[in-house]
Amino acid sequence: TQQLLLGRVPRPRPFRVTNADRSVKKGIIADMLEDLMNKASDSLSVLCVSALMLDEDGTGVDTEEFFQTLPENTVFMVLEKGEKWTPHPNSPPRDQLSECEPR
Amino acid sequence: TQQLLLGRVPRPRPFRVTNADRSVKKGIIADMLEDLMNKASDSLSVLCVSALMLDEDGTGVDTEEFFQTLPENTVFMVLEKGEKWTPHPNSPPRDQLSECEPR
Repeated sequence: TQQLLLGRVPRPRPFRVTNADRSVKKGIIADMLEDLMNKASDSLSVLCVSALMLDEDGTGVDTEEFFQTLPENTVFMVLEKGEKWTPHPNSPPRDQLSECEPR
Repeated sequence: TQQLLLGRVPRPRPFRVTNADRSVKKGIIADMLEDLMNKASDSLSVLCVSALMLDEDGTGVDTEEFFQTLPENTVFMVLEKGEKWTPHPNSPPRDQLSECEPR
Protein backbone atom coordinates (compact mmCIF):
# COMPACT_ATOMS: atom_id res chain seq x y z
CA THR A 1 0.00 0.00 0.00
CA GLN A 2 2.91 2.30 0.71
CA GLN A 3 4.11 1.76 -2.81
CA LEU A 4 0.72 2.74 -4.12
CA LEU A 5 0.73 5.88 -2.03
CA LEU A 6 4.09 6.85 -3.40
CA GLY A 7 2.99 6.05 -6.90
CA ARG A 8 6.17 4.18 -7.63
CA VAL A 9 7.98 1.01 -6.68
CA PRO A 10 11.01 1.67 -4.47
CA ARG A 11 14.14 0.42 -6.17
CA PRO A 12 17.53 -0.28 -4.64
CA ARG A 13 19.68 2.84 -4.57
CA PRO A 14 23.14 3.64 -3.21
CA PHE A 15 23.54 5.64 -0.01
CA ARG A 16 26.39 6.39 2.37
CA VAL A 17 26.08 5.97 6.10
CA THR A 18 28.45 7.14 8.79
CA ASN A 19 28.50 6.69 12.56
CA ALA A 20 28.09 9.34 15.24
CA ASP A 21 31.78 10.32 15.36
CA ARG A 22 32.19 9.95 11.57
CA SER A 23 35.07 7.50 12.04
CA VAL A 24 33.53 4.96 9.65
CA LYS A 25 31.50 5.46 6.51
CA LYS A 26 30.02 2.72 4.36
CA GLY A 27 28.36 2.51 0.98
CA ILE A 28 25.03 0.74 1.29
CA ILE A 29 22.36 -0.24 -1.21
CA ALA A 30 18.80 -0.03 0.06
CA ASP A 31 15.32 0.25 -1.40
CA MET A 32 13.46 1.35 1.70
CA LEU A 33 14.16 3.18 4.96
CA GLU A 34 13.90 0.07 7.11
CA ASP A 35 16.21 -1.77 4.73
CA LEU A 36 18.80 1.00 5.08
CA MET A 37 18.50 1.00 8.88
CA ASN A 38 19.01 -2.75 9.04
CA LYS A 39 21.98 -2.77 6.69
CA ALA A 40 23.55 0.27 8.36
CA SER A 41 23.17 -1.44 11.71
CA ASP A 42 25.01 -4.51 10.42
CA SER A 43 27.63 -2.67 8.44
CA LEU A 44 28.56 -0.19 11.15
CA SER A 45 28.09 -2.60 14.06
CA VAL A 46 25.44 -0.42 15.64
CA LEU A 47 23.53 -2.63 18.04
CA CYS A 48 20.31 -0.67 18.13
CA VAL A 49 19.63 2.16 15.71
CA SER A 50 17.76 4.97 17.43
CA ALA A 51 17.71 7.40 14.53
CA LEU A 52 18.84 8.05 10.99
CA MET A 53 19.73 11.67 10.22
CA LEU A 54 20.99 13.54 7.21
CA ASP A 55 24.70 14.02 7.83
CA GLU A 56 24.68 17.46 6.27
CA ASP A 57 22.30 19.13 8.70
CA GLY A 58 20.98 16.60 11.20
CA THR A 59 17.52 16.30 9.68
CA GLY A 60 15.84 13.21 11.13
CA VAL A 61 14.57 10.86 8.45
CA ASP A 62 11.59 9.14 10.05
CA THR A 63 9.27 8.41 7.18
CA GLU A 64 9.44 6.22 4.12
CA GLU A 65 7.91 8.98 2.04
CA PHE A 66 10.64 11.47 2.87
CA PHE A 67 13.33 8.82 2.43
CA GLN A 68 12.10 8.09 -1.07
CA THR A 69 12.61 11.71 -2.11
CA LEU A 70 16.31 11.72 -1.19
CA PRO A 71 18.84 11.49 -4.02
CA GLU A 72 21.33 8.68 -4.54
CA ASN A 73 24.45 8.79 -2.39
CA THR A 74 22.83 10.94 0.26
CA VAL A 75 25.01 10.71 3.38
CA PHE A 76 23.26 9.59 6.56
CA MET A 77 24.40 9.43 10.14
CA VAL A 78 23.17 6.48 12.15
CA LEU A 79 22.73 7.09 15.86
CA GLU A 80 22.46 4.77 18.81
CA LYS A 81 20.46 5.71 21.86
CA GLY A 82 22.13 8.62 23.65
CA GLU A 83 24.14 9.74 20.62
CA LYS A 84 23.59 13.07 18.95
CA TRP A 85 24.21 14.54 15.54
CA THR A 86 26.92 17.21 15.48
CA PRO A 87 27.75 19.62 12.67
CA HIS A 88 30.36 18.54 10.18
CA PRO A 89 33.84 19.95 10.83
CA ASN A 90 33.99 20.91 7.15
CA SER A 91 30.87 22.98 7.26
CA PRO A 92 31.17 26.72 7.11
CA PRO A 93 31.30 28.31 10.51
CA ARG A 94 27.74 29.08 11.55
CA ASP A 95 27.36 30.94 14.80
CA GLN A 96 30.44 29.21 16.09
CA LEU A 97 30.41 31.12 19.30
CA SER A 98 26.95 30.16 20.38
CA GLU A 99 27.54 26.53 19.43
CA CYS A 100 30.96 26.10 20.89
CA GLU A 101 31.28 28.37 23.84
CA PRO A 102 28.30 28.12 26.09
CA ARG A 103 28.87 30.46 29.00
CA THR B 1 21.24 -13.88 -8.26
CA GLN B 2 23.08 -10.68 -7.49
CA GLN B 3 23.29 -9.96 -11.18
CA LEU B 4 19.58 -10.54 -11.52
CA LEU B 5 18.87 -8.18 -8.66
CA LEU B 6 20.99 -5.53 -10.25
CA GLY B 7 19.36 -6.20 -13.57
CA ARG B 8 22.63 -6.17 -15.42
CA VAL B 9 25.74 -8.22 -16.00
CA PRO B 10 28.89 -6.63 -14.56
CA ARG B 11 31.20 -5.55 -17.36
CA PRO B 12 34.83 -4.47 -17.15
CA ARG B 13 35.11 -0.77 -16.38
CA PRO B 14 38.03 1.57 -15.72
CA PHE B 15 38.78 2.75 -12.19
CA ARG B 16 41.66 4.54 -10.50
CA VAL B 17 43.24 3.29 -7.33
CA THR B 18 45.68 5.04 -5.05
CA ASN B 19 47.51 3.96 -1.93
CA ALA B 20 47.12 5.27 1.61
CA ASP B 21 49.59 8.15 1.24
CA ARG B 22 48.46 8.89 -2.35
CA SER B 23 52.05 8.50 -3.60
CA VAL B 24 51.00 6.10 -6.39
CA LYS B 25 47.85 5.96 -8.47
CA LYS B 26 47.01 3.35 -11.11
CA GLY B 27 44.36 2.90 -13.75
CA ILE B 28 42.75 -0.50 -13.42
CA ILE B 29 40.05 -2.31 -15.38
CA ALA B 30 37.75 -4.48 -13.28
CA ASP B 31 34.31 -5.97 -13.58
CA MET B 32 33.70 -6.82 -9.95
CA LEU B 33 34.81 -5.64 -6.53
CA GLU B 34 36.98 -8.67 -5.84
CA ASP B 35 38.59 -8.30 -9.24
CA LEU B 36 39.47 -4.68 -8.44
CA MET B 37 40.86 -5.62 -5.01
CA ASN B 38 43.08 -8.31 -6.53
CA LYS B 39 44.37 -6.12 -9.32
CA ALA B 40 44.89 -3.14 -7.00
CA SER B 41 46.80 -5.37 -4.63
CA ASP B 42 49.13 -6.46 -7.45
CA SER B 43 49.47 -3.10 -9.10
CA LEU B 44 50.18 -1.13 -5.93
CA SER B 45 52.17 -3.91 -4.22
CA VAL B 46 49.79 -4.06 -1.31
CA LEU B 47 50.35 -7.41 0.38
CA CYS B 48 47.00 -7.75 2.01
CA VAL B 49 44.13 -5.41 1.18
CA SER B 50 42.12 -4.63 4.30
CA ALA B 51 39.70 -2.17 2.74
CA LEU B 52 38.78 -0.30 -0.39
CA MET B 53 37.45 3.20 0.18
CA LEU B 54 36.23 6.01 -2.01
CA ASP B 55 39.13 8.45 -2.16
CA GLU B 56 36.76 11.42 -2.13
CA ASP B 57 35.19 10.84 1.27
CA GLY B 58 36.46 7.60 2.77
CA THR B 59 33.28 5.64 2.18
CA GLY B 60 34.07 1.95 2.61
CA VAL B 61 33.08 -0.12 -0.41
CA ASP B 62 32.28 -3.52 1.04
CA THR B 63 29.57 -4.85 -1.22
CA GLU B 64 29.38 -5.84 -4.84
CA GLU B 65 26.02 -4.11 -5.11
CA PHE B 66 27.38 -0.74 -4.06
CA PHE B 67 30.47 -1.17 -6.21
CA GLN B 68 28.31 -1.72 -9.28
CA THR B 69 26.61 1.66 -8.81
CA LEU B 70 29.88 3.58 -8.95
CA PRO B 71 30.71 5.45 -12.14
CA GLU B 72 33.69 4.77 -14.36
CA ASN B 73 36.97 6.26 -13.22
CA THR B 74 35.88 6.45 -9.61
CA VAL B 75 39.02 6.93 -7.52
CA PHE B 76 39.57 4.39 -4.75
CA MET B 77 42.06 4.21 -1.94
CA VAL B 78 43.36 0.77 -1.06
CA LEU B 79 44.32 0.24 2.57
CA GLU B 80 46.44 -2.34 4.30
CA LYS B 81 45.76 -3.36 7.85
CA GLY B 82 46.49 -0.47 10.19
CA GLU B 83 46.21 2.18 7.47
CA LYS B 84 43.48 4.79 7.50
CA TRP B 85 41.82 6.99 4.95
CA THR B 86 42.63 10.66 5.38
CA PRO B 87 40.92 13.63 3.74
CA HIS B 88 42.41 14.87 0.51
CA PRO B 89 44.90 17.71 1.04
CA ASN B 90 42.87 19.77 -1.41
CA SER B 91 39.72 19.55 0.65
CA PRO B 92 38.76 22.40 2.94
CA PRO B 93 40.42 22.34 6.35
CA ARG B 94 38.59 20.09 8.75
CA ASP B 95 39.84 21.61 11.94
CA GLN B 96 38.00 24.89 11.62
CA LEU B 97 36.26 24.30 14.87
CA SER B 98 39.29 23.04 16.76
CA GLU B 99 39.63 26.37 18.45
CA CYS B 100 36.22 25.76 19.95
CA GLU B 101 36.93 22.38 21.44
CA PRO B 102 36.75 22.09 25.20
CA ARG B 103 39.95 23.07 26.88
